[in-house]
Amino acid sequence: MSTLTETLVAVRPADPAATRAALDRQDRLTKPRGALGQLEAVSVRLAGLAGTCPPPMPEPAAVAVFAADHGVHAQGVSPWPQEVTGQMVANFLAGGAAINAFARRSGAAVVVVDAGVATSLDGLVPDGAVAEDATQVDADAPKLLARKVRPGTGDLSTGPAMTRDEAVAALELGIEVANGLVDAGYRCLITGDMGIANTTASAALIAAFTGASADVVTGRGTGIDDETLNRKVAVVQRALDLHSAVVQEGDGVEIVAALGGLEHAAIAGFVLGAAARRVPVILDGVIAGSAALVAQALAPAAVDACVAGHRSAEPGHAVALAALGLTPMVDLELRLGEGTGAALALPLVQAAVAALGEMATFDSAGVADKGE
Amino acid sequence: MSTLTETLVAVRPADPAATRAALDRQDRLTKPRGALGQLEAVSVRLAGLAGTCPPPMPEPAAVAVFAADHGVHAQGVSPWPQEVTGQMVANFLAGGAAINAFARRSGAAVVVVDAGVATSLDGLVPDGAVAEDATQVDADAPKLLARKVRPGTGDLSTGPAMTRDEAVAALELGIEVANGLVDAGYRCLITGDMGIANTTASAALIAAFTGASADVVTGRGTGIDDETLNRKVAVVQRALDLHSAVVQEGDGVEIVAALGGLEHAAIAGFVLGAAARRVPVILDGVIAGSAALVAQALAPAAVDACVAGHRSAEPGHAVALAALGLTPMVDLELRLGEGTGAALALPLVQAAVAALGEMATFDSAGVADKGE
Repeated sequence: MSTLTETLVAVRPADPAATRAALDRQDRLTKPRGALGQLEAVSVRLAGLAGTCPPPMPEPAAVAVFAADHGVHAQGVSPWPQEVTGQMVANFLAGGAAINAFARRSGAAVVVVDAGVATSLDGLVPDGAVAEDATQVDADAPKLLARKVRPGTGDLSTGPAMTRDEAVAALELGIEVANGLVDAGYRCLITGDMGIANTTASAALIAAFTGASADVVTGRGTGIDDETLNRKVAVVQRALDLHSAVVQEGDGVEIVAALGGLEHAAIAGFVLGAAARRVPVILDGVIAGSAALVAQALAPAAVDACVAGHRSAEPGHAVALAALGLTPMVDLELRLGEGTGAALALPLVQAAVAALGEMATFDSAGVADKGE
Repeated sequence: MSTLTETLVAVRPADPAATRAALDRQDRLTKPRGALGQLEAVSVRLAGLAGTCPPPMPEPAAVAVFAADHGVHAQGVSPWPQEVTGQMVANFLAGGAAINAFARRSGAAVVVVDAGVATSLDGLVPDGAVAEDATQVDADAPKLLARKVRPGTGDLSTGPAMTRDEAVAALELGIEVANGLVDAGYRCLITGDMGIANTTASAALIAAFTGASADVVTGRGTGIDDETLNRKVAVVQRALDLHSAVVQEGDGVEIVAALGGLEHAAIAGFVLGAAARRVPVILDGVIAGSAALVAQALAPAAVDACVAGHRSAEPGHAVALAALGLTPMVDLELRLGEGTGAALALPLVQAAVAALGEMATFDSAGVADKGE
């Protein structure tokens, strides 16, 4: 299952028998029915994905941070220089970023995937940090997978961001990473991302897939001022106009090639790869949400493998989550990316599975039910 | 600091220098300013409480589940029989409840405190589960502290729930538990509760402390029907009318004695004890929120030690949180109690501290700042 085509064929919907068994078991556990709220829904979702009730504990977990640059940066949509993408890759590998701190707390491994950083990483990578493939990921030290599809995309507001072949290569890169992590024993995948200007591509993708207007889905990203926001909305609108034929008639690959980023395509592949292997994938914020729309367009059942880790402060994210039919686990007004919101949700997802798997039933504990 | 008076004197506000140092450090970490949202605020809060930046990691953690019964149960405010309180204490001690599953996931100890269960626990307590005091808490097996102040309160809608002396005894029980856990090395305290009908007492307390009306703060608890809800609102209103002089002129002790539960008074003491020892306390849902209002009335700075773990589905909880000035960490539509919502927030609070303490700064990581 290493090609896109093979992977799409392998993505299947949730197992109805395991889903029913989990719903039934939730109603016999020692708590009022429904009292664990959204955690009950997550546990049922993971049972359906695994095809067993209770589902296996989603651990160990690994965060894949897909890094890439964006030609649209030239339009002045971000105050940050493009070099920051590579500098942050170095920070991830040195363990100094927020995602490193969160991953350490929850025992998750971190792999950084250079899917298309514009600048060279020479001199920025610590000794021993380069992995040959995703099976070499190490829970104790972040690893780099050097898989640059191209050094940054083209400017999506003046032409296609990438070719169809490049989009397929990035999708298959994500599939490769997912398969490698599952082969290495990881049982929960977490999406991460890094790329200056990537909320612009996310907004364009969300508008393309949902029909929402550019001003609704475009936000302040890392915190831009009003003037930059107005420019960013105009850039997204121009891109949608330029690529209107693809938006109307294209498939998921064509749309991500026209409007997306290399990390968006790779994350879409990562989601598809996880779904094909029936391993849950926790989505981070607006970049992951827009990438999941690509995956959904290619294989709708891929969404059954997804848990929305959080809702970011970026307005397009809520639009994407609604289109995916996902409810976020936490809402802490994060707007960082890197996988931080998804990593924070990991212990909540694990707690949901623990409750379903470990709690006593009314019968077994000798607790009186109210007799509904 | 074992008496209420000594403890109240020891509760002091956050340290301004450590608070400022944490705010300043957050702005130099390798992320856009404010990008960690609410986690930044929590890390600053814990620095101010500890008086150091970064603050110590809030671990190990212990959940104290205060169990008690309520005379107001006789008014038909809950479909569950009162015996369930004691049966659930047995379930906690056997490790079969949701709070056990969550505490195991996050490495937190569980101590169950019988502050006033109406029924006898004879025959329900596993061998070896009784602890003499809170320093004997064990991370591997739940323990029981048998400290019944009285076997259930009186009916708050027909008279005072307890005497002032009993309220002080329950407050000092909570202080004792907090001190015992801190003496045993726990550095994060988590409130838990069990008591059939305790959302009725919570609603009465929240109305009394905030002035909100009975119908706004009274909810469906574990999931009651419309008829029971109407009766519950009327019971809360009757209690507020009956005790209107205390509500208008009484202190926190008098109000909790008139309208509260033994677990409410004990949790208020637990919060005060944690604050006096400058150890953070994560509040669970509406029972903890109403108990924290008691603590706030007695020592306003006690709120500086509190983190709101979650927002429960019970409508009075949002009213209580607003009066406390606290923003909940998660909102998963839980309505279970036991400390479950607070236990789920524990890894998020720890992640907030990890980010402040472990992340690289722009200078140290060689990452370009956008130069605000």
